[in-house]
Amino acid sequence: MIDTEPTIESDYVSEEPLKLASGENLPQIVQHYAVYGELNDDKSNAVLVFHALSGSARIADWWSGIIGEGKSLDTSKNAFICINYIGSCYGSTGACSVNPKTGEIFGAEFPLITVSDILKAQKKVLEHLGIEKLKAVIGSSVGGMCALQFAVDFPDSVEKCLVIGTSELSAMGLALNHLQRESLKLENNVGLARQIAMISYKSPELFNRRFGRNPNRSGENPRLKFENRFDIAGYLDYQGEIFKNRFDAETFKIISKAMDLFELSDLEIQAIKANIYLVGISSDWLFPAADVKKFAERLNEKGVNAEYINFESPDGHDAFLSDTNKMSEIIKRIQI
Amino acid sequence: MIDTEPTIESDYVSEEPLKLASGENLPQIVQHYAVYGELNDDKSNAVLVFHALSGSARIADWWSGIIGEGKSLDTSKNAFICINYIGSCYGSTGACSVNPKTGEIFGAEFPLITVSDILKAQKKVLEHLGIEKLKAVIGSSVGGMCALQFAVDFPDSVEKCLVIGTSELSAMGLALNHLQRESLKLENNVGLARQIAMISYKSPELFNRRFGRNPNRSGENPRLKFENRFDIAGYLDYQGEIFKNRFDAETFKIISKAMDLFELSDLEIQAIKANIYLVGISSDWLFPAADVKKFAERLNEKGVNAEYINFESPDGHDAFLSDTNKMSEIIKRIQI
Repeated sequence: MIDTEPTIESDYVSEEPLKLASGENLPQIVQHYAVYGELNDDKSNAVLVFHALSGSARIADWWSGIIGEGKSLDTSKNAFICINYIGSCYGSTGACSVNPKTGEIFGAEFPLITVSDILKAQKKVLEHLGIEKLKAVIGSSVGGMCALQFAVDFPDSVEKCLVIGTSELSAMGLALNHLQRESLKLENNVGLARQIAMISYKSPELFNRRFGRNPNRSGENPRLKFENRFDIAGYLDYQGEIFKNRFDAETFKIISKAMDLFELSDLEIQAIKANIYLVGISSDWLFPAADVKKFAERLNEKGVNAEYINFESPDGHDAFLSDTNKMSEIIKRIQI
Repeated sequence: MIDTEPTIESDYVSEEPLKLASGENLPQIVQHYAVYGELNDDKSNAVLVFHALSGSARIADWWSGIIGEGKSLDTSKNAFICINYIGSCYGSTGACSVNPKTGEIFGAEFPLITVSDILKAQKKVLEHLGIEKLKAVIGSSVGGMCALQFAVDFPDSVEKCLVIGTSELSAMGLALNHLQRESLKLENNVGLARQIAMISYKSPELFNRRFGRNPNRSGENPRLKFENRFDIAGYLDYQGEIFKNRFDAETFKIISKAMDLFELSDLEIQAIKANIYLVGISSDWLFPAADVKKFAERLNEKGVNAEYINFESPDGHDAFLSDTNKMSEIIKRIQI
């Protein structure tokens, strides 16, 4: 499976502290990144991909149907770079790292991070790699927020910006993130927080089709005992359980908070020079397609070249991961 | 406010044990009930109202705009009876009661309860009051399940059945109930469970209109500190907090589980003789209007006289409580 291994996987360490939007400084930072495909000599074929809340820099680990030779993110043509967010737990400086100031793990002491902070750090990696201008930035969910904010913060550094299932969070989106952080407070319960997140990533239609009112596939009968579950409950418990082993509570809080704070002012929007492609997923209720469309209209009104693209899928927010064929079609349409 | 006080508020104690669907017996049971208006001599003006998950027998405490003299549930014409569910914590035998077998509080030992069990107990109160046939049964949410199941279990005892924002729970509905019960497991967290419930009772549209992306009205700035909240989060926290003081974790679990189990077989549906009115709330995502409509169609196919009524409201599931004018119109249309 050489196709799914990055060409480069490495850490970049910046010695100078990173000044955050909150005013705090993050001392010496490590950023873990991966590159798929080969950067050409003039570094003009670089595409920056942003991961979602629980993702890592290893794009092919979570987007295997999308990235590779001849696929819609074609590694024989472009070099795709993904950098684990500061604040995350997949190799970059985050809540699990040692705070050089104190010699202890950051934990809940990790400072408040915004999407702009993440990008400010990532720009240093791009500079280190000698990349001045990106062909494109691509992301979904919090990754979509990063893509948009990149076009705002570094307007001369990107040509195309593909944003999937993303807008500013609505009040319901803020509510869902709040519930997740509240459950993380209780015995740091990553499992329950993940379960709440999962219902927002999937559509009612998908749940009905896949689980309906069936008893849990383990064979337990929900009518017989209080603890016995329906299939959907067994599925959510399982999702919570496996997530506990791969994710960290503080990271969850940090990135979810960064999502909450993503918001573009009119002035910021007017700074954008890239062509923006905003994809709304028809069955997404975390970032409803109507909100994405309205966001595209707002960009247009402010003079940005933004196109709204409808992604018709019954899979909910996670369609960008699960509905590979349609996702590929849309990416190909952008012509990166 | 004499209008909001019941004519009768009392307890009915049945000495013989109640045999539950699970096979277990519930010993001597108390049921707390309230009557609004006067029962006429031949007891032909009785209407049974069912409360929702967190409601009590005191209808006017939660449906004040609906019940009273000259209102849509007109106490000058009919007698409206509401009986607190067994398993609940508002006066009837429930998890907070002493188990006469052990002399200790039931707590988590309270047996599994179905909607039919609740009705079997309530029928005893009706008999005690000398009521053989009800003009109508009315309920929303789990109360709607009770109304429907009443028409199944006692087909000769009711003429009209008004069911608001109710169907069998979909997989998403089961998921939401599961999340609530999961959070109740953690330090018995009634507050978080209520917060999860609240998002399912309200619509995204209502949340946007009422809270949007505003900072919490307390004045805290979400950008400044990790703990600082948006207005929607402050609202949810507050809802969770006040609920803790009025509701019990075990009751929450018991009634939520009874909701999960509500399901009508074709045979059960064919037993119905009452006229059924099924109301779908346009912005309800816990019991989507489309599901209610489909349920009405299923009843029709099985020969039941069922009418689907559209309740156009932006308020979500809770519209039956908040959108008094439209709720009143619909109730009046049924002509009880």
